[in-house]
This record gives sequence, C-alpha cells and structure tokens, in this order.
Amino acid sequence: MILRPKLAPIIDALPSTVPFVGPEAQERARGDVFRARIGANESSFGPAPSVIARMAEAAPEMWKYCDPDNYDLKAALAAHLGISLSNVVVGEGIDGLLGLIVRMYAGPNTPVVTSRGAYPTFNFHVAGVGARLVPVPFRDDREDREGLLEAVKRENAPLVYLSNPDNPMGTWWEAADIQRFADSLPETTMLILDEAYGELAPESARLPLQVTRPNLVVMRTFSKAYGLAGIRCGYAIGEETVIAAFERIRNHYGVSKMAQIAGEAALADQDYLRSVVDRVMAGRARITAIAEANGLTALPSATNFVTIDCCGGADFAGAVMQTLLSRGVFIRKPMVPVLDRCIRISIGLDRELDIFAEELPAALKAARGG
Amino acid sequence: MILRPKLAPIIDALPSTVPFVGPEAQERARGDVFRARIGANESSFGPAPSVIARMAEAAPEMWKYCDPDNYDLKAALAAHLGISLSNVVVGEGIDGLLGLIVRMYAGPNTPVVTSRGAYPTFNFHVAGVGARLVPVPFRDDREDREGLLEAVKRENAPLVYLSNPDNPMGTWWEAADIQRFADSLPETTMLILDEAYGELAPESARLPLQVTRPNLVVMRTFSKAYGLAGIRCGYAIGEETVIAAFERIRNHYGVSKMAQIAGEAALADQDYLRSVVDRVMAGRARITAIAEANGLTALPSATNFVTIDCCGGADFAGAVMQTLLSRGVFIRKPMVPVLDRCIRISIGLDRELDIFAEELPAALKAARGG
Repeated sequence: MILRPKLAPIIDALPSTVPFVGPEAQERARGDVFRARIGANESSFGPAPSVIARMAEAAPEMWKYCDPDNYDLKAALAAHLGISLSNVVVGEGIDGLLGLIVRMYAGPNTPVVTSRGAYPTFNFHVAGVGARLVPVPFRDDREDREGLLEAVKRENAPLVYLSNPDNPMGTWWEAADIQRFADSLPETTMLILDEAYGELAPESARLPLQVTRPNLVVMRTFSKAYGLAGIRCGYAIGEETVIAAFERIRNHYGVSKMAQIAGEAALADQDYLRSVVDRVMAGRARITAIAEANGLTALPSATNFVTIDCCGGADFAGAVMQTLLSRGVFIRKPMVPVLDRCIRISIGLDRELDIFAEELPAALKAARGG
Repeated sequence: MILRPKLAPIIDALPSTVPFVGPEAQERARGDVFRARIGANESSFGPAPSVIARMAEAAPEMWKYCDPDNYDLKAALAAHLGISLSNVVVGEGIDGLLGLIVRMYAGPNTPVVTSRGAYPTFNFHVAGVGARLVPVPFRDDREDREGLLEAVKRENAPLVYLSNPDNPMGTWWEAADIQRFADSLPETTMLILDEAYGELAPESARLPLQVTRPNLVVMRTFSKAYGLAGIRCGYAIGEETVIAAFERIRNHYGVSKMAQIAGEAALADQDYLRSVVDRVMAGRARITAIAEANGLTALPSATNFVTIDCCGGADFAGAVMQTLLSRGVFIRKPMVPVLDRCIRISIGLDRELDIFAEELPAALKAARGG
C-alpha cells in the first residue's frame, strides 16, 4: 500500500464535486457556442469604452506586481463612497471576500445562517472551513428576514448572509427593512450584506453606509453593473477593525494589477454606469413582456436578470431550461423548492433577447409534452 | 461596552501587521517614483508583444466571467508539459496556491518545515491556519536539504517547502539532488517544490515532472520569466488526487479571464521566453561585474536576480540598501542572519542597471561612514 500525505480532516471530508459549471464547460460538452449568453447575470453591455481603453493601455505594464495595498483603487472607492481607506478591502470578486470572512468568523461546526437557495459560493466557503450551514427558506420569493433572525438566535450564529437585491429571485427589501434587520441582530452576529446588484437597485433599497458598526460588512463588485465579471474585483466595506482582520489572511497579491486599474477606471465613468442602468431597466421590461406574452409570470426585479415563474413545477421549469440550452440559449434556474418552478434570464443585448423570445414558445411547448 | 462578533481564535491570534510592503507604498512614502525598479524580481523586459496584443484585444470581453475550469489554459499547459489536465491546477499566482496547499495539509499546531529566510508569503499562509513554522537555516547560502529532511523527520511534518532556484539567494540544486531529497522524504510528507524561477535555471536544475507521486507538488508561475507578475497567474502540478483536492477549496472564479488569456498567449510564445532568458543571463553577468568592480562578491544565480554579498554585516548591507532606496533605486535584501549581509538586485533594463552602477559606489561609501 502506498502511503500518502494526509489531508486535513476538514478538507478530507469535503465532496470532490463542486457546483460550478460555467457556460464554457457546457459549450465544450455540446460542441458549439451559445447563441445567447444570458445565464450568468453578466453585463452583456460590456465594460465602459473608457475602461476598455485603459485596460489596453495598461497591458504592457503587467510585468509589474500589483500594488498589494490596492491603494489607488481603495482611494478612489473611499472618495466615491465618502468613507476612509481603512473601511474598505479589495478582493478577487465577492467570492474571494466571502471565503475570507467565513474563515474570520467560522470554524468547525460553527452555525452559519443563509437563505436556502441563495448564493452557492457562500455555502461552498462555509463547507470549506467545516462550518455548519443553517439554511432558511425564502418566503414569498424573498429572503425571509424574520426567519433568518429566528435562526440566528436559535443557533447563536456568529455569521448571517443576506443579499439585497437577492439572487436567484431578483427581489429586494427596502433599505429601511434591511436596517431593521441589522438592528435586530445580536451585536455578536456579523451580517454579510451582499449588494452585488446594488447599483442596479432603486436608491431606496441601498443601505446607507455605516462604517462604525462592528457587525456589518457590505460587499459590492465590479462584476455586475460595471461589466467587469472577468476581471475579478470586488470590495467589502465595514468598520475598520473588521476590515483590518481581512488583512491578516487575504492573499495580498490576489487582485491583479489589471483589475485594480480597470476598477478605478470604471468608478471614474459614472455616466456609463447610468447608461447601463437605463439599458438594464429596459431589458427587465422586455423580458417581463416576453414572459407575459407566453402566459408566464415575471417576478419584479432590482437586478440585471428577471426570474420567471413558469407556472408549473420544478420539472417543468427544468425542461424549459434544458430545451433552451439545447437550442443555444444559455440560461440558469433556481434549484431548490419552491424557487425551482422558475427560470432566470439575464438581461442581454437586444439580439440575445430576440433569440430568447423566439425560442421560449417552443421550449414551453416541448415541456408541456407538445 | 460594545459587544462585537468574535474572530475565530486562529485569526484573532494573528499579528495585524504583515510583511508586504510594495514599491508603490515606498513611492508614496517618499513622494517620488523610483528611477530603477529592480527590487521585486519582476521582469523589466515585460510580457511578450504577442501577449500584450492579446490582452488588449481581450479587454472588451471582460464582461464575461472567467471559465472556472481554466480549461483553455490548463489544456495549453498540459500540452506544453506533456501531462494531463487532471495534473494541473491554476491559481492567483503561486501565492494563492500556497494558501490552498497549507489549508489542505496543515491546521492548528501542525509542524511545517521551510528554510529560514525563504519565501515569507508561505510563512504568512502557515500562520494563517495556526500551523507552526519550523525554519531550517540556509547552509552555505543554499537551502539545506539534509537540515530540512532532519527537521521533517524530527517533527513528523506533513509539509515541507523548498524553492529551486531559491529566493532570496538565487542559488540552486541540480535536479538529481532535488530528486534524492524527494526520495528521502517520508511518503506521508508533501514536498512543495517552488520553481517560480524554473524557466531561468539551467535545464539540469529542473526536476523532471513526475505526476504519479502523491507527495510532490511543483509550483510555477507566469510572474517571472513570462513577465506577467501583475496578472496573477500561477499553476501547480501534481498527482491527480492531490490536484483534485485543490478543487475542493479554491476560489473557482479567482483567476481572471484576462490572466487565463494572457497565460495561454505567453505559453504560445516560447521564442520570446528564450529571448528573455538570454537577456537575464546577460543581466546576471552585468550585475556580477558591477559588484566585482566595487569589491563585492556576487553569488551565482539561476534566477532573474543576483544576490550580492556586501562583505560587511547586516547593518552595513542595510545601510547600502537604504541609501540606494533614498536615491531612487528600488532593491530589497534578505533579512535573516547570515543571509542579511547581502543585497538583492533584480535584472532590470540596461538603463536601470546603469543607475545601479552609478549609485552603488556612493551607497557603499555612505555605509562605510564616508
């Protein structure tokens, strides 16, 4: 028998399969590219032309290591947000920051509260430290604040995750409701408020920043409204001793120089951001109209996607998705009951939504056994 | 008294200061940019023109998430190295991969063996999981294989780190010596062989890949010879079940789409790589000549830097470095006895080495109290 190095028990116990299937893997499997890429809540409108130009210009400089302090980007964020540099930390997308905050506050068997069917990458990181996920069902297609609070108290959980607006339903709470939720939490429970879609939500849904509160971290990203999902750059905002704790374990050279430059340039082009928000709102209306024209119900959305209730069960919605995928339309869907009666359509370009409008009736017909 | 969320004990015990001072921070402190950037072992020659063109071309595509499988890059690496895709994992530089492998094999109080004064980021990650660093002094300015082996056996350590060629001294072992070291390790001890500078070393110093060995992981990077330090892309090669374990905890969306594209393009331009190796060899000779012209001793190097014995103590070498820094020449130096008698000069452009040659005599004079 060959002896081998032993994995740490937590890692050894983890499943070897992970739920990250990118559209590229699906394209490789089907041997063809998708005609419409409207499944990953990316911004088909792309980064701002000013950002593209800045990235191209910066390419020859990539021989230099990135600034491990992310100074220029943090200074730009601090100025934009009206906070101090000590209140912000930059990471490899919100994904990277979620991995860190879980390590900061959880360990083996720590209860960590989230909504059932919410962001799977958070759950992946919770499992990665051997912590115990406490999932609370959505209620009426929204994250259930009362249910989350009850779970936090019952479990004495040090960490609770809430996204606003949320993924995969696209629904949201007003800032005042989030504030009440935050205020009702034990002081010893850290609230991770994921505002990945924040720039696309109504002003009234964005929690005013409060950087003196030691049990709130707000996460934002350049992946969504700013159209930079591929560059991997997110940031977390919080009280300075909380932010300082990220410094103790983060990969200080994890966020590329290109990402820091692109993020700074994106922040400087707020006109472009506003134009994207307008196009996203038009896209929501378009997808809603397509759903209604097919007798389906579109959920209200504050994000760059629209979740559509297919008005059948999970199998029906799954069949609709599979047909669309097979016809070259990349979409995704929620996977847990009762959210799984829905499909989720990202706001693509007009020509991508044209393809969706063309293909949806046949997909519904096929799912109905037609 | 304000209650607050409690940090996990391991994180709470970590120091809040970290040893990552980038040249950008030093430039901000001195209020001026460096005239010569020859301190971080970057490649002043830059990425290949073909890679720069590919990055510029890819910039508009950055709205798409990166492929979480890193498929195209891994396929290119596998073809280049003659291994299978299941033998390679891509990460946010070697730094990111070191953070993962430490989590995979170490936990609270696990003994982890390295050389004293070797790569500090490895030590940072070891501390980050609460493991216990067992540092073994360099011997005759090289990593001490016998000493490392003795420490592994004494401590029953599951993890040992060795870089070849090494940083900060630039020295190296022949592959046959490394092979004997690997063969002498207990089967339950994982050897992390950091070949960040591998492409710059003599062929005879590069360990032939052996992907069926469950206690060896070789790490390489696009940061050094390929001139892409700012893009954050490294990779680890190993036996497939070892590589599979990385998948359980890595940030699947951690390596940017730009990095994956740049890495693939860099690999495709081996002519450029060869031209860089030639220029690095010329640079080594030039720095050695400058050292000798000043009565100092340059160590032999298989890397893109030359470590120079200033032939005084640590304070003397420190004073030389400080004067150079104050004169706009960014260099670094080893910090632990007895390596700390040296300064470390990266192979820069001719005009950067001209500045070094100009400034060194005055820096030596100042350090001698002159």
